[in-house]
Amino acid sequence: MSAFPFSKLVIFGVGLIGGSLARGLRERGASQGVSGQSGGQVIGVGRRAHSVARALELGVIDAAATLDDEAALAAALDGADIVLIAAPVAQTQALLERIAPHLQPQTLITDAGSTKSDVIAAARAALGERIGQFVPGHPIAGRESSGVEAALPDLYVGRNVVLCPLPENAPQAVERIAAMWRATGAVIGQMSAAQHDRVFASVSHLPHVLSFALVDQILDTPDAELKFSFAAGGFRDFTRIAASSPEMWRDVCLANRTALLAELDAYTEVLAKLRAAIDAGDGAALETVFARSRAAREAWQERGGKKFAQAAPAPEAGPGK
Amino acid sequence: MSAFPFSKLVIFGVGLIGGSLARGLRERGASQGVSGQSGGQVIGVGRRAHSVARALELGVIDAAATLDDEAALAAALDGADIVLIAAPVAQTQALLERIAPHLQPQTLITDAGSTKSDVIAAARAALGERIGQFVPGHPIAGRESSGVEAALPDLYVGRNVVLCPLPENAPQAVERIAAMWRATGAVIGQMSAAQHDRVFASVSHLPHVLSFALVDQILDTPDAELKFSFAAGGFRDFTRIAASSPEMWRDVCLANRTALLAELDAYTEVLAKLRAAIDAGDGAALETVFARSRAAREAWQERGGKKFAQAAPAPEAGPGK
Repeated sequence: MSAFPFSKLVIFGVGLIGGSLARGLRERGASQGVSGQSGGQVIGVGRRAHSVARALELGVIDAAATLDDEAALAAALDGADIVLIAAPVAQTQALLERIAPHLQPQTLITDAGSTKSDVIAAARAALGERIGQFVPGHPIAGRESSGVEAALPDLYVGRNVVLCPLPENAPQAVERIAAMWRATGAVIGQMSAAQHDRVFASVSHLPHVLSFALVDQILDTPDAELKFSFAAGGFRDFTRIAASSPEMWRDVCLANRTALLAELDAYTEVLAKLRAAIDAGDGAALETVFARSRAAREAWQERGGKKFAQAAPAPEAGPGK
Repeated sequence: MSAFPFSKLVIFGVGLIGGSLARGLRERGASQGVSGQSGGQVIGVGRRAHSVARALELGVIDAAATLDDEAALAAALDGADIVLIAAPVAQTQALLERIAPHLQPQTLITDAGSTKSDVIAAARAALGERIGQFVPGHPIAGRESSGVEAALPDLYVGRNVVLCPLPENAPQAVERIAAMWRATGAVIGQMSAAQHDRVFASVSHLPHVLSFALVDQILDTPDAELKFSFAAGGFRDFTRIAASSPEMWRDVCLANRTALLAELDAYTEVLAKLRAAIDAGDGAALETVFARSRAAREAWQERGGKKFAQAAPAPEAGPGK
């Protein structure tokens, strides 16, 4: 893995996602690290002094700033090559508005939000004519634990990072962000923001809603306790994602409202079709649906469960800065 | 584990479920095995000669009969203490009708079907006034693989077996069946057939339908391939049960139609409530539902994922035959 040359990377939100980028770049030789070897400097910016202090203490970042210190923020952004927004999606616009006054022409901004259309709208509102400096992104990686202590240098190895380039993005700008992620071991894919939001509404956001909904429905029945007592492996797998963060999934549902509602409505139609077949005793119709689903699920599993299909081939690594 | 004394057990359908009962009893000393030690004889009955032949070859059963040989069937049932129906639920009535002419007064019949109201109706139709000899049961155990080769002696260790006694069952008859399962290491619970069907409609049958439905819905969208390509861990867990047998789940859906439709309708109402909250941008409503579901899911996980709540305490092991 070749090192990615940059002089200054600023990460807003040094938790699992931002911290793992910093650690991934550092341990792969692309950033200088505390020992001052060749590569770039990584600066972490947080809302609270203690969270960036912890990241500094762990050696995840080289320097820190907090949002309430305007001078430190200006200094952090001065000469920055890349800024990553790795904070909750709902904070994107406010953060970009704080960054905008200090944004220099050579600086590219990217993000790690799990929805894209809303993030792009927020970026357009905050950055105006400088929107070309913002390259929307979404690393498809996570762990059950969060925070900078959970950050791992190999979190992105072999994982997908989706970029959703804007018409205003120069190809070199997109490639620059792609190269940064590639330096952590990630695989880069590109699609439009609308495609992205449909895809993740379908395979991630909707399943979370459906899983939360099943537990909710059981809780409202008089024999809820008995039901939980006999729930076994199928229930366990199906509801694993119902243990996810309520705040995060609230935000995702609202941020990706349009795409999620479209998928939810299509899903509700499938349920209505299955309900009618069950009610009519139409075993052939049920078996047809179940058999087709099983075949698709098995094919997905057989090809590794998350084969990366490049919607648009990513260009080869170009020259750095 | 004390041995369960019986002289003759007849198993209709020596696959995973029936075969594991035979192996569990044998290896725990409750049946005689090929060496002829103390305990009972296990006879397997199958539709096809080759399936019972394989069970015999593997030493899972002591003797075999096929359904098309009336004399062998009569001989198998002569002097039987217990008959287990471990064939697909849809075959229950036909099998009981084959058994009925040879059913002796001392013989108890039980089953392993995953639905109970329909099995009881089938048993009443086939057995008439002798319905008291039929004790409905459901071992909550399974594996991905099926067939007698997949049978395990410890499949039932620590697993729940639900019995749904009928008003016509003598308490000793219920205890007799409970003792047989207990001899395999299982834990016995009792509930009514209606309760059973509601519980499993909720925590097993509905999740299967919902999981099949998600894959089906994705397949009907133009960007299905892209969606599958970016599906990750949440999707994997949620759809694991969509790789289940289409035939079996078709039969379960139809056999438990009433309870399943009730749960599906209640679930659809929850989805409509969540849809309205997403559409209205009501983050507080979403977070309330998600937080309550997460708390319940985490509590379930913490208490072992399948704590057994005894709806009706099972009696202590009574005297054998």
